[in-house]
Amino acid sequence: MYRIAVLPGDGIGKEVTKGAVKVLQAIGDRFGHAFHFSYGLIGGEAIDREGTPLPEQTLHMCKQSDAVLLGAVGGPKWDSHPPHVRPERGLLQIRKEMNLFANIRPVTFYSSLSASSPLKSHVIEGADFVIVRELVGGLYFGKPSERRVEKGEETVVDTLFYKRAEIERIITFAFTLAQKRKKKVTSVDKANVLESSRMWREVAEQVAKRFPDVQLEHMLVDNAAMQLVRSPKQFDVIVTENMFGDILSDEASMLTGSLGMLPSASLSVDGPALYEPIHGSAPDIAGQNKANPLATILSAAMMLRLSFGLTEEADVIERAVKQVLDAGYRTADIAQQGDCVLSTTEMVEKVKDAI
Amino acid sequence: MYRIAVLPGDGIGKEVTKGAVKVLQAIGDRFGHAFHFSYGLIGGEAIDREGTPLPEQTLHMCKQSDAVLLGAVGGPKWDSHPPHVRPERGLLQIRKEMNLFANIRPVTFYSSLSASSPLKSHVIEGADFVIVRELVGGLYFGKPSERRVEKGEETVVDTLFYKRAEIERIITFAFTLAQKRKKKVTSVDKANVLESSRMWREVAEQVAKRFPDVQLEHMLVDNAAMQLVRSPKQFDVIVTENMFGDILSDEASMLTGSLGMLPSASLSVDGPALYEPIHGSAPDIAGQNKANPLATILSAAMMLRLSFGLTEEADVIERAVKQVLDAGYRTADIAQQGDCVLSTTEMVEKVKDAI
Ligand SMILES: CC(C)[C@H](C(=O)O)[C@@H](O)C(=O)O
Ligand SMILES: CC(C)[C@H](C(=O)O)[C@@H](O)C(=O)O
Repeated sequence: MYRIAVLPGDGIGKEVTKGAVKVLQAIGDRFGHAFHFSYGLIGGEAIDREGTPLPEQTLHMCKQSDAVLLGAVGGPKWDSHPPHVRPERGLLQIRKEMNLFANIRPVTFYSSLSASSPLKSHVIEGADFVIVRELVGGLYFGKPSERRVEKGEETVVDTLFYKRAEIERIITFAFTLAQKRKKKVTSVDKANVLESSRMWREVAEQVAKRFPDVQLEHMLVDNAAMQLVRSPKQFDVIVTENMFGDILSDEASMLTGSLGMLPSASLSVDGPALYEPIHGSAPDIAGQNKANPLATILSAAMMLRLSFGLTEEADVIERAVKQVLDAGYRTADIAQQGDCVLSTTEMVEKVKDAI
Repeated sequence: MYRIAVLPGDGIGKEVTKGAVKVLQAIGDRFGHAFHFSYGLIGGEAIDREGTPLPEQTLHMCKQSDAVLLGAVGGPKWDSHPPHVRPERGLLQIRKEMNLFANIRPVTFYSSLSASSPLKSHVIEGADFVIVRELVGGLYFGKPSERRVEKGEETVVDTLFYKRAEIERIITFAFTLAQKRKKKVTSVDKANVLESSRMWREVAEQVAKRFPDVQLEHMLVDNAAMQLVRSPKQFDVIVTENMFGDILSDEASMLTGSLGMLPSASLSVDGPALYEPIHGSAPDIAGQNKANPLATILSAAMMLRLSFGLTEEADVIERAVKQVLDAGYRTADIAQQGDCVLSTTEMVEKVKDAI
């Protein structure tokens, strides 16, 4: 039995996790697995009901599970809250508390979606890479992060902090992944400005020595932001620190035409992993049965592969998604003029049918 | 008489500034202006000859000038130098010493170049916005920026620091600019994570009250990285902190198909301004008469307009560039199959002819 903690969160989070659970159940039926789902609060709804974006109970449940499936958090309702009771804090806390240091965001090109990408087909055709983002360090968690009055002037400070061991851990992870892929690591930093990036580069060089079969290249983050759009096919595994990874992975989502297509996995050293779509809670379309459930469904596939070792089952989901897209089914975010637009639940049914 | 300090710098910096100087001379001839050029060392060459990336003499000359024209700095030769004697340090120092707080990077769509953009024409057609990047604060200059051993562990820290007054200054600048344009400011931050971004957002709200005719919108930096590719036409003036601006403006250069097309101006409160292409020193093609001089030529046009108030003259350069592109002339970076490729000097001649 596989115990899955489901944290729907806010906005479309509820709709897309519901869809992914249905797909997992279909896989369970077909392959004879028992998935047990337990539900927890996180984000805005947790604030409303428990006064905190990550209730103790939710965290406990996640730690006891075999894997966590998360929807999305946040919404305008909580935007004026003080920082420690904002929905996003729940997400940052769970990453930190479960030590989810490695966020993996595969960027896959779907030929049937090339019309909905803002990029020209010849640029993106065949692109296939993974962004490995460090998830528990950097500017996101460094202290101090505060306002100060200095010599009568109001000032503010945030801190980009890393332990060398944290850098080594994520870079080693990236090399291990590249070894199973096209054997190339692009380490992204800003070594011409940041001391942390210079350490990052040094560590990358050292780790590379242990992986003689993997090619290492360094790229400055500004250049990387350009190259992702200019010639994304050059990449295999991109590894970078937390904030750079946040920016670059959202940018990279445009290769597939929509944030609604990109899954992610966040792995820890030895505890359960967390799977979530990279999109947000999309308050503007929440509750309207319009959201694209595919990123969450693909996140569930990553769960099967990475947490449970159910490779065939994961393949089945991924092939089902591809088949559904090839057949021309679209949610609103990836639809072109003339396409027949499906609702969230209809899209889920199509994927289930294809399984 | 206009006194222009020219800092060619390294790599293609020499070739492109030479081109821009020729164009300025042509403008001088046509309109009867006297431009006086004096030359200074910066970057790698300054390190080689003076032992420092920004010699006192260079800085002095720049401060005495009416405007500064810079090529580019850096190259592999100096990559292994310690941080304080690296070419980029010269650039960061001159920005700081001359208090060049506002970096303006206009992103203009050239219909004749749409073939060389990786983005689909309908996405970029008509896009016309300006990125206003804060240039003397943030992660680039905050202290501490150093390695430390903490409890026996090697760690590293960089600091994102802003004074409230610095944030207010750049945001006010952006609003003033927007007032003369399409009256929309997109303030980019990461307010769901950074305290500095929360202050940034607050200040933006306050400044907005003084500009009731300008619309303010906030956008998270990850979303902005996506929106720049997805629908760049939505933007008018984007204002953001130093590092975010660095990343987003290189990304945005892909709208025109090449970094080689984008000029920039860096303005101070009351001293001379500095003009430079946003591209780097491109060591791989340095000295081969291949570089695209247009970004530097367009930077010279910005100088005429912003530092000298020579609007007509600036227009003449910009129209000349457009005309040359419309006539199908291309340097290698923006050439498509079948195009006849010009050298740097040939391109400069074409622009001069069009003036
Ligand atoms: C919601 C936000 C705090 C989060 C982040 O910045 O990490 C999100 O953008 C993401 O990428 O998962
Ligand atoms: C060379 C480097 C320090 C510089 C920066 O990061 O500011 C460059 O990328 C730029 O954008 O002008």
